[in-house]
Amino acid sequence: MKLLRFGSVGSEKPAVLHDDGTIRDVSSVIRDYTPETISPTLLKLLRDTDLSALPVVPEGVRIGAPVARTGHFIAIGLNYADHAAETGSPIPSEPIVFSKAPSCLSGPNDDVMLPKGSEKTDWEVELAVVIGERCDCVPEDKALSKVFGYTVCNDVSERDWQMKRSGQWIKGKSAPTFGPLGPWIVTPDEIRDVQDLDMFLDVNGERMQTGNTKTMIFSVAHLISYLSQFMVLEPGDIITTGTPPGVGMGRNPQVFLKPGDEIRLGIAGLGEQKQKVITR
Amino acid sequence: MKLLRFGSVGSEKPAVLHDDGTIRDVSSVIRDYTPETISPTLLKLLRDTDLSALPVVPEGVRIGAPVARTGHFIAIGLNYADHAAETGSPIPSEPIVFSKAPSCLSGPNDDVMLPKGSEKTDWEVELAVVIGERCDCVPEDKALSKVFGYTVCNDVSERDWQMKRSGQWIKGKSAPTFGPLGPWIVTPDEIRDVQDLDMFLDVNGERMQTGNTKTMIFSVAHLISYLSQFMVLEPGDIITTGTPPGVGMGRNPQVFLKPGDEIRLGIAGLGEQKQKVITR
Repeated sequence: MKLLRFGSVGSEKPAVLHDDGTIRDVSSVIRDYTPETISPTLLKLLRDTDLSALPVVPEGVRIGAPVARTGHFIAIGLNYADHAAETGSPIPSEPIVFSKAPSCLSGPNDDVMLPKGSEKTDWEVELAVVIGERCDCVPEDKALSKVFGYTVCNDVSERDWQMKRSGQWIKGKSAPTFGPLGPWIVTPDEIRDVQDLDMFLDVNGERMQTGNTKTMIFSVAHLISYLSQFMVLEPGDIITTGTPPGVGMGRNPQVFLKPGDEIRLGIAGLGEQKQKVITR
Repeated sequence: MKLLRFGSVGSEKPAVLHDDGTIRDVSSVIRDYTPETISPTLLKLLRDTDLSALPVVPEGVRIGAPVARTGHFIAIGLNYADHAAETGSPIPSEPIVFSKAPSCLSGPNDDVMLPKGSEKTDWEVELAVVIGERCDCVPEDKALSKVFGYTVCNDVSERDWQMKRSGQWIKGKSAPTFGPLGPWIVTPDEIRDVQDLDMFLDVNGERMQTGNTKTMIFSVAHLISYLSQFMVLEPGDIITTGTPPGVGMGRNPQVFLKPGDEIRLGIAGLGEQKQKVITR
């Protein structure tokens, strides 16, 4: 199943992508996809719903981030060996964990705004995980059973703010629109192997990132288990799991986003995003 | 006004500390204190309410964290010059920003649980700010007008996890019960000068931390303004603003929390917390 949210910013409604290719408004069945409603029960409710009887969402409507009121937006750094190399960083001995402000979440096709004073805003295509059940010291072999679904994230990053403004990465990862998420949450039953998904990112039609989740240093199951030793993960929490090679910072010469640029990114089976870059 | 939440974990109800010293249940007036309800309108509603007509909460009831469903729990590192010195760190040239998992929030008098495998769990008395209105590039002279209120936070920290587990501090700051908050949110009108508040922390009756918010390197107004350049702050977000000297890591020899320890901490005008340390 593919779950999404549509409508104007702050007024999104929940929907499901129907087998016939239409988007169906499920707001008469569930109020919204939030930390309070995300659960196996929600999936059962939606599976028991006759989607063909629900309203079709008009084409061209804005799509929002597929989960509302996210409590924790966690990110993993340098989780692909080739990406670590291109940034001049050693391969980490254990996952590098940081966070993004939940207020940076945006729809998958919303404009990406360059913050005032930013000179080094960069792109990162990433596999994101939406947590479906509370995780507290979960063993690795149980970790994937706690996943509500998978989606695409562009972990937009201001490199100077991330690296040169007193150390912690959160500063460069949290500006408004720095977290395009979606287009939809794909439930795990539709993903044959989460560690074998092709991913790409283009800027202005030029292929910048090419990767596959099989070259992750730490697997999704390992990341969930690992994180749950340090903190409780809750339903609706998002973990974006790191980016493959090809970021602007890693190119020679370096390239960063400028107004008017168009970004397109996607992951096999999870859909695509398209963003225009604008100034604030 | 002093706003608090009472009841068992996960089922807290909103309340107000009445002038007569009793706690009054305001759940008939407002459902809860959440990012959706925290606003100047909420304060007006509560000010217009006749508290003396509302139920008295029995003494001895558990007090929870004073805000529910926090979206972002932001923390500032090394914000007191003497504390930076005791940790062997240089005085930062700009605020050090990290975050704590919202799931670590707990009531002000709940037990602090030592995580499995932890050997260096430490205390930090801090002034915490609850944001009341959206902050996006707010100038410093407008910043304090965005504050919903102030409260006490114990920024409990596992030092090895913070410092020695691949770099970012979030890992050592986020375990369950690592964020005792409360006992209540005190509205700004009751605080004469937020940059002149005495603070203390005792362990087993011995004074460990003594400080005053006047020795902050970066003021509360500066922190809010500064953060709002990097990320949008939203109602219900919590900023805990750093700790004065006297943490266990800074002592010679170092001292860390062990099962059975009792922590007491407080800030003038904001109340006190008391926690027992237990193993998980």
